[in-house]
Amino acid sequence: MGRARFAYDFPHRNLLSVGALNPLDVSMLFKRAGEHFERNRTPDKKIDALRGLSQINLFFEPSTRTLASFELAGKRLGADVVNFSAGNASIKKGESLADTAETLAAMRPDLLVVRHASAGAAAFFAEVTGISTINAGDGAHEHPSQALLDTFTLTRRWGEIGGKRIAIVGDIAHSRVVRSNVSLMNLLNAEVRLCGPSTLLPANADRWGASVFHDLDEALEGCDAVMALRIQRERMGAGLIPSEREYAALYGLTHDRLELANPDCVVMHPGPMNRGVEIDAALADDPERSVILDQVESGVAVRMAILEMLAGQAPNMRYDEGEQ
Amino acid sequence: MGRARFAYDFPHRNLLSVGALNPLDVSMLFKRAGEHFERNRTPDKKIDALRGLSQINLFFEPSTRTLASFELAGKRLGADVVNFSAGNASIKKGESLADTAETLAAMRPDLLVVRHASAGAAAFFAEVTGISTINAGDGAHEHPSQALLDTFTLTRRWGEIGGKRIAIVGDIAHSRVVRSNVSLMNLLNAEVRLCGPSTLLPANADRWGASVFHDLDEALEGCDAVMALRIQRERMGAGLIPSEREYAALYGLTHDRLELANPDCVVMHPGPMNRGVEIDAALADDPERSVILDQVESGVAVRMAILEMLAGQAPNMRYDEGEQ
Amino acid sequence: MGRARFAYDFPHRNLLSVGALNPLDVSMLFKRAGEHFERNRTPDKKIDALRGLSQINLFFEPSTRTLASFELAGKRLGADVVNFSAGNASIKKGESLADTAETLAAMRPDLLVVRHASAGAAAFFAEVTGISTINAGDGAHEHPSQALLDTFTLTRRWGEIGGKRIAIVGDIAHSRVVRSNVSLMNLLNAEVRLCGPSTLLPANADRWGASVFHDLDEALEGCDAVMALRIQRERMGAGLIPSEREYAALYGLTHDRLELANPDCVVMHPGPMNRGVEIDAALADDPERSVILDQVESGVAVRMAILEMLAGQAPNMRYDEGEQ
Repeated sequence: MGRARFAYDFPHRNLLSVGALNPLDVSMLFKRAGEHFERNRTPDKKIDALRGLSQINLFFEPSTRTLASFELAGKRLGADVVNFSAGNASIKKGESLADTAETLAAMRPDLLVVRHASAGAAAFFAEVTGISTINAGDGAHEHPSQALLDTFTLTRRWGEIGGKRIAIVGDIAHSRVVRSNVSLMNLLNAEVRLCGPSTLLPANADRWGASVFHDLDEALEGCDAVMALRIQRERMGAGLIPSEREYAALYGLTHDRLELANPDCVVMHPGPMNRGVEIDAALADDPERSVILDQVESGVAVRMAILEMLAGQAPNMRYDEGEQ
Repeated sequence: MGRARFAYDFPHRNLLSVGALNPLDVSMLFKRAGEHFERNRTPDKKIDALRGLSQINLFFEPSTRTLASFELAGKRLGADVVNFSAGNASIKKGESLADTAETLAAMRPDLLVVRHASAGAAAFFAEVTGISTINAGDGAHEHPSQALLDTFTLTRRWGEIGGKRIAIVGDIAHSRVVRSNVSLMNLLNAEVRLCGPSTLLPANADRWGASVFHDLDEALEGCDAVMALRIQRERMGAGLIPSEREYAALYGLTHDRLELANPDCVVMHPGPMNRGVEIDAALADDPERSVILDQVESGVAVRMAILEMLAGQAPNMRYDEGEQ
Repeated sequence: MGRARFAYDFPHRNLLSVGALNPLDVSMLFKRAGEHFERNRTPDKKIDALRGLSQINLFFEPSTRTLASFELAGKRLGADVVNFSAGNASIKKGESLADTAETLAAMRPDLLVVRHASAGAAAFFAEVTGISTINAGDGAHEHPSQALLDTFTLTRRWGEIGGKRIAIVGDIAHSRVVRSNVSLMNLLNAEVRLCGPSTLLPANADRWGASVFHDLDEALEGCDAVMALRIQRERMGAGLIPSEREYAALYGLTHDRLELANPDCVVMHPGPMNRGVEIDAALADDPERSVILDQVESGVAVRMAILEMLAGQAPNMRYDEGEQ
């Protein structure tokens, strides 16, 4: 007795925040990303899903990895991809953000990928331009494609993320990946714990949908995954955190420490890593524990699915009634 | 009784100056650009007209908009596009301009797009390399694709630019868009007025084919379009112009001031704008008045037509005997 | 009575050093490069040999020419090409070279082109990633694609490089092109002479497979080709070499000097040139003598052949039993 099956239309024009997604959206994105993930491992990586469309990557802040990931994603889908990097001329010349947005929009791109230091910048671009916009990080606010790739990585490994417990450790306050991850993991019924020194934890972090810890050993108890955040050396000595060595002693992830978590607990990091500070080198390289490179690989596949779905060019997908 | 129809061959290898164009060239360019303009608004922006050809964008000065416009134009036509940006290595290493030109030519591009601070640089590249070259701005000398997109914008709006009066206002001396616009608008039988403080008007401007004004109110009389030029803040206080506020009072475009022009007078700006200085924000955003974003949109379409025609890859076009 | 013919499979995954190549590899590379060389002179430069594959150009040092050459090569073959330029974010953020390598590899490129200041960097990338890697210059160590294009240029001119004598003149110590050229020319049975002031000649240069000269006139005797190396002005006055004028007098190539070589002796330079220092302007521009632009043109063709062969996408080639 088969379940009913329905056609699925991705109901979003933009990807600004994971808050807009429902579990079915995520499930369909992951299904499609899974196909890209497999194809990206073959020599036939290219499809023509976005042929005829133009994608502009507008990065006001440098970000090697994220830019490359979106650039490869767009090109593998057959889009015409143009990069605008930070410090570009018009912006230096003092043009307003709205004018930059409208000027780019007038060139008729079909997809905008925006990285900016200020919360809300991508939403502003989407509103001003009416063009499908992906928030590729707006300060410490949201970075939804990163949360999707992190969760996709865990879902590929576990089959299902619901009911799991994930700790995020380190500079919670300044990270661009935390909020989107908490929202998305909560949406999928995972439990999230945030852990770091109080100087790096926002006062309102306990209202984000995660429990807050200052002691890493406590935070790790019963965890199925732990994500180390990059600690920025420039914050050290500035009173926020004492020293690299002290930070590593208190919050650095090691094999020993992971004994406090569940037996199969995996380790994540959004990169780039400070080996020996927030994560021990041996742990980062442990193929049993580390899914850090899976995250990078998943990134291209997930972004391909996002670009296709926003452009309305994903193949006609169906879902079962019982599917999340 | 039909008119005779003739096949049209674009008779130019390079686009260095608008002075080389005749009205029929412009008319055919605009006809083709109009097709690209419409297609660029669809999700099927890409055609294979330049497939197999290589386009090198060689920008010795940064220019976000112009570079992006040419890059999108080339990619949408199926060319392989490679960007060389300013401050690149060989140039820093003191290689001569001729050696840079010959080296690039040896890589066998089919199209060169050159932006350089010195008058004549693009012509030099064309001569040295023998490769189809587009002058994308050589100092304050010529910028023919900009003049073509400006005139295309007005022609789309009016049907015909002949007999219209257009004022260009501001820093005439340092603008890279004025001379090409005066030539092209004259060619198409429009009247051009130049207006600015005497410190920003070259002594010989009255011999460019335009009448010269220092008083904006006088210049605006009977105008069908007025183009505000970007005023560079670094020139202020240097004795050339008194202050931002004084400049705005004397030469800034506003709704009030536009009352002195013809009732349907439109406003243009090559961008990026200093809102509140050379143009009032409300005027720049007035959809009845401002064609500033039309200019940007036209830019990609016009450049597509230019690239195709120079490459001899435009479709076989025909024209009536009576066509301009 | 025909010779037997065999199918040829390029037996290398990487191109890190010319030392790995045998004469048949070079012969097959040159045969395929010759086809690309001819096609690059037509308007149908593009083939789909690498369609579906991704190529990442990772340049830790700027190099306009080499990057453009590889970028054009990849694009003309239909690959998706992504450039990472020096000074990029992650590297600035202190990420280790191994982490950069593994991160890029996780994005599943099929080809990596690496330029780095340190000897062994490209080999390190190849080892860490397992991805087909081309060494596009690792300090003063190896730059195999440059040696292949130099040798291809001479082979096209002469038919055969075996038995010829080639002098390489100038800053032997700091050049990234010398060692690869000596190895490759030796492999093909050409004789190589190195000539320069003792401050710019490594102590062990006589063990590289070339004879060493300090006097240019002696070195030129009987030469069929002479390659001038770029002299870096920043080394002058630092005690290594006296002055531009003195250097030119001792080691600058001129028509007069070339009288000491064989009658048809050709002149090469890897570029960018200091005209009037290591090479006289009139000589650099003499179409009878100079093959400097042939080198650039050959560069794109040779790199196309390299990319195809490493990717295993070159067409099925055959060779005669007697072929080198």
